[in-house]
Amino acid sequence: MTLSSQQKKEIAEQQTQKNTTKRVTSPELEKILYEAVSVLDHGFVRVVDYMGDDSSIVQAARVSYGKGTKKVSTDSGLIKYLMRHRHSTPFEMCEIKYHVKLPIFVARQWIRHRTANVNEYSARYSILDKEFYLPLKENLAAQSESNRQGRGDLINGKQADNILNILKKDAEQTYSNYELMLNEKYDGSKIDEDNKGLARELARMNLTLNTYTQWYWKTDLLNLLNFLSLRADSHAQYEIRAYADVMIESLKRWVPITFDAFMDYRVGGMELSAKGKIVIQKMLKGEKCDLENSNLSKREWNELMESFGFKEKIL
Amino acid sequence: MTLSSQQKKEIAEQQTQKNTTKRVTSPELEKILYEAVSVLDHGFVRVVDYMGDDSSIVQAARVSYGKGTKKVSTDSGLIKYLMRHRHSTPFEMCEIKYHVKLPIFVARQWIRHRTANVNEYSARYSILDKEFYLPLKENLAAQSESNRQGRGDLINGKQADNILNILKKDAEQTYSNYELMLNEKYDGSKIDEDNKGLARELARMNLTLNTYTQWYWKTDLLNLLNFLSLRADSHAQYEIRAYADVMIESLKRWVPITFDAFMDYRVGGMELSAKGKIVIQKMLKGEKCDLENSNLSKREWNELMESFGFKEKIL
Amino acid sequence: MTLSSQQKKEIAEQQTQKNTTKRVTSPELEKILYEAVSVLDHGFVRVVDYMGDDSSIVQAARVSYGKGTKKVSTDSGLIKYLMRHRHSTPFEMCEIKYHVKLPIFVARQWIRHRTANVNEYSARYSILDKEFYLPLKENLAAQSESNRQGRGDLINGKQADNILNILKKDAEQTYSNYELMLNEKYDGSKIDEDNKGLARELARMNLTLNTYTQWYWKTDLLNLLNFLSLRADSHAQYEIRAYADVMIESLKRWVPITFDAFMDYRVGGMELSAKGKIVIQKMLKGEKCDLENSNLSKREWNELMESFGFKEKIL
Amino acid sequence: MTLSSQQKKEIAEQQTQKNTTKRVTSPELEKILYEAVSVLDHGFVRVVDYMGDDSSIVQAARVSYGKGTKKVSTDSGLIKYLMRHRHSTPFEMCEIKYHVKLPIFVARQWIRHRTANVNEYSARYSILDKEFYLPLKENLAAQSESNRQGRGDLINGKQADNILNILKKDAEQTYSNYELMLNEKYDGSKIDEDNKGLARELARMNLTLNTYTQWYWKTDLLNLLNFLSLRADSHAQYEIRAYADVMIESLKRWVPITFDAFMDYRVGGMELSAKGKIVIQKMLKGEKCDLENSNLSKREWNELMESFGFKEKIL
Repeated sequence: MTLSSQQKKEIAEQQTQKNTTKRVTSPELEKILYEAVSVLDHGFVRVVDYMGDDSSIVQAARVSYGKGTKKVSTDSGLIKYLMRHRHSTPFEMCEIKYHVKLPIFVARQWIRHRTANVNEYSARYSILDKEFYLPLKENLAAQSESNRQGRGDLINGKQADNILNILKKDAEQTYSNYELMLNEKYDGSKIDEDNKGLARELARMNLTLNTYTQWYWKTDLLNLLNFLSLRADSHAQYEIRAYADVMIESLKRWVPITFDAFMDYRVGGMELSAKGKIVIQKMLKGEKCDLENSNLSKREWNELMESFGFKEKIL
Repeated sequence: MTLSSQQKKEIAEQQTQKNTTKRVTSPELEKILYEAVSVLDHGFVRVVDYMGDDSSIVQAARVSYGKGTKKVSTDSGLIKYLMRHRHSTPFEMCEIKYHVKLPIFVARQWIRHRTANVNEYSARYSILDKEFYLPLKENLAAQSESNRQGRGDLINGKQADNILNILKKDAEQTYSNYELMLNEKYDGSKIDEDNKGLARELARMNLTLNTYTQWYWKTDLLNLLNFLSLRADSHAQYEIRAYADVMIESLKRWVPITFDAFMDYRVGGMELSAKGKIVIQKMLKGEKCDLENSNLSKREWNELMESFGFKEKIL
Repeated sequence: MTLSSQQKKEIAEQQTQKNTTKRVTSPELEKILYEAVSVLDHGFVRVVDYMGDDSSIVQAARVSYGKGTKKVSTDSGLIKYLMRHRHSTPFEMCEIKYHVKLPIFVARQWIRHRTANVNEYSARYSILDKEFYLPLKENLAAQSESNRQGRGDLINGKQADNILNILKKDAEQTYSNYELMLNEKYDGSKIDEDNKGLARELARMNLTLNTYTQWYWKTDLLNLLNFLSLRADSHAQYEIRAYADVMIESLKRWVPITFDAFMDYRVGGMELSAKGKIVIQKMLKGEKCDLENSNLSKREWNELMESFGFKEKIL
Repeated sequence: MTLSSQQKKEIAEQQTQKNTTKRVTSPELEKILYEAVSVLDHGFVRVVDYMGDDSSIVQAARVSYGKGTKKVSTDSGLIKYLMRHRHSTPFEMCEIKYHVKLPIFVARQWIRHRTANVNEYSARYSILDKEFYLPLKENLAAQSESNRQGRGDLINGKQADNILNILKKDAEQTYSNYELMLNEKYDGSKIDEDNKGLARELARMNLTLNTYTQWYWKTDLLNLLNFLSLRADSHAQYEIRAYADVMIESLKRWVPITFDAFMDYRVGGMELSAKGKIVIQKMLKGEKCDLENSNLSKREWNELMESFGFKEKIL
């Protein structure tokens, strides 16, 4: 992450704000408000605003006149109940806003979550920063052979060096040509005083997908949980998972009771199909159960066994 | 509006909260936070939470690291520009939450605004308050003869008395039978100790549509403006307009610059069709223009003339 | 259900349409297209349009140039995979439109599903039909004592008669007064030639919540499944479940492969929390597991045991 | 546009489908169903499915039992009325689905329209086609000096040649390195038999933003109109406008009455602010009106004069 001194100064100024409000506050989240938490090589996530806390969920579920909370234990029981039974609307009553810097290919996955508000840095209007994502060697994985949209073993040695070299060289070259076409350097200085520059909305097409962009992204708590359960999952691409992991930390600070329920019922939980449930029921009764009499496909059987930590995978 | 002493106490407690935050605050809105502003005979609107202010719009539009504001005049110019050119996403960066008490037939219009979060008081779970909307005589209008979904002249005298009498009597009777079927009074006391009560989810079907319900309703600023421009409009039903009018006051306190732009470009503004524009252009050049050579339907012509305050309505 | 002869004629006319199209069709759904299937005492559900079939899901998931389908078995495997792993977007590629007649209190639950398009019969503009929902005796349940939003035992005998009598009488009386205030009968005849009628948008407030309304309701397949999994569930109110059950029949005709996957993974499936999974894992290994060492609350324990059909409920 | 012979064959097969349906059809749209209409150098738009026609709007607005249509003139009057008064929900009752091939930087603008369903070709799963957008010389514009997100004069001569050369060379080089890292050519052949390839989800980050992607995109008619009014507008970037222009042709075939109303009220229409309306009113009365007494900012004044075709622009 490379913040300019001007940016650091602006962030520091935000952090010194001390306003009085009748609204509920989330003291643990306030501590890191505005702070740019580093993600990948040049990205960051920072919480820039929020509304509500755990008590707001309780308040809305009860449509109460006052704070909505009774005892902590009662509130916690209600929030767990709502989460367990997928009573979703009370979780929509909290809202959070992030400022995120992220590679464009990550942004393209992220934007698929439609129930959110977004303002992205405009490359029609401004010049993008000269920053591109280059993976660490430990994340340079080969295409998985079993999972067509996943990663397999690490790539090592000379091949890894070559790949990193290519990524770096191509990003630098295309960015440098971006400046050339714009007739303007990323710092605003003109290149050839006698020439016009190509329109920004056109020149940007020469940039590679690992170029960093940034946006303000705002969503309600329910949709944040949906985002996190998909993007912090082991099937998500590592690069977006890196963002989700940092955001889970902010979730924990913001709404600790909801966080606990989320980890228990969503992140650590699983779904059983009707057929899968019958298999488990049989096994619990001590009845013999295998792929043949399970009514499951081989793939379903393997996924089920894996979920419960059994080794009985069938290839 | 009839708040119980318990409800008043709970609201008063909310109002004494004094928390410190690094978030932006809206001092004028803070002054009325949690306050139940009376609407119709038993309804109210109260702001229970909010996020952001005018500067948040500017901040998101610029995707800035700091507060996003420069000078007030610059900010104001940008907000007006965004409003004029329907750049909508920056207005989604502010959020507000209301607690509203309203008649069910109003709630049914309101809920058609889908881009909002709602938690309604559950009549499956609880007993509804014994409160029904009865119009003031000054709002007791006859069916309009020209506009099939509007109001015409006032109804007076004995007919008005009869109508109000009917509304009152039927609401009271159906509510009283609601209690009878529930075998429970609205204050929680049981009616016949030896009987069970009908399920609440069933008994409620006997209530009339002017019975009051209540909900928490949360939306972003853009969708609040959409709601207000439709519901504070003269074509909206009076009863929902009464709510919109109170909410416009909260808008003014919350985001005064946006409020000004909204009044200028949306509420006071108008739309011209391609054909309508040609008519106005001709008129501006002093050319003769009437229904015949206007290319407009009679209805369009009349609507256009009325918009500009001309008397030349054609029946 | 009481369709007028004019309505029957219009529906019959729709059913005789025979158009040629290059679009995919769903032959089993075509058979019941436009048909009003009776629900409750005066309600109905009829499919009035649709777009796509099972192959459209496959086609979109593959972003294919052609029909998207390979063999039926391959398609079926893909659809099951998508359902199992909650790959939701391909299911959004099919769309269906219903015309529904339903009591207002059911409509108020239904409309909470926001990702749908709705046009409701306007009681500002027109007079509502003289039809109200009256439950069958076999559905007249007492308030549940264990579940605050559910039903308990049936209400019988004289109390049941009284309740049905109240519901009928109050609905008839309030409707009759509705006509009186409108100064117009439901068949359009005027009551008192010398009087104006009250505006429709006002008079309707006198109607009870079991009055029938109707609407066109359109949604995509994904959101239909979400609707059905909530509303065909045993925790849903009986009256909306009656609609969901009829709609599940149309689902089966429309997209039979998706229907199967839905029944297996959603309707018949269940969710396990992280803690619940540990309990089941222990049990599968033959380890002793009870409420005390389970880390679950009593309520969670009971729900878990019930899910697997164990009797070990703890009160 | 470069369709493979296999793709051409699949499209041709779709076009020969001839199914019978009771649904309404749009004969003019059927004529071009599935046809890939060329856009830019390698892109296309093709309609792959639709639901409803003009009569469906009328039918839903009337919540009718039958076809909803009366006479063509009555239907047309109703549709115009709905459009003029922004009664939006009936337009949501029609749905259309496109298969689109488009450069990634265009896709990034397009996806901001959230009320739509999308399935994009997955570059985690598959290898992207070797196709990049290169502007025609006639579209190679310099950055506008007055409008920070617009285009100014054309760039000519040697500078233009250089720019096109850069775009072509960089796209080819980064694509070729993409293949190298994947260890696989776009045609599926392996490059080095002894090596693994980099995971596809990583390798794609080396591609430039003018690389073509493709997706299935489905939306309702209301949101299609919103999309078109923004993206067929002169302020939209030329490259996305090229797509919108082709889609407007499909709109005209599909719902010709709605198309006419859309062109009159939206595309050719304009908005007047409250202050702007006063200026026009004064002018219509022959009163002197200039920037000074107009209450408008210079920018607003200029935009207003320009809208009505007056030359009185003030710099």
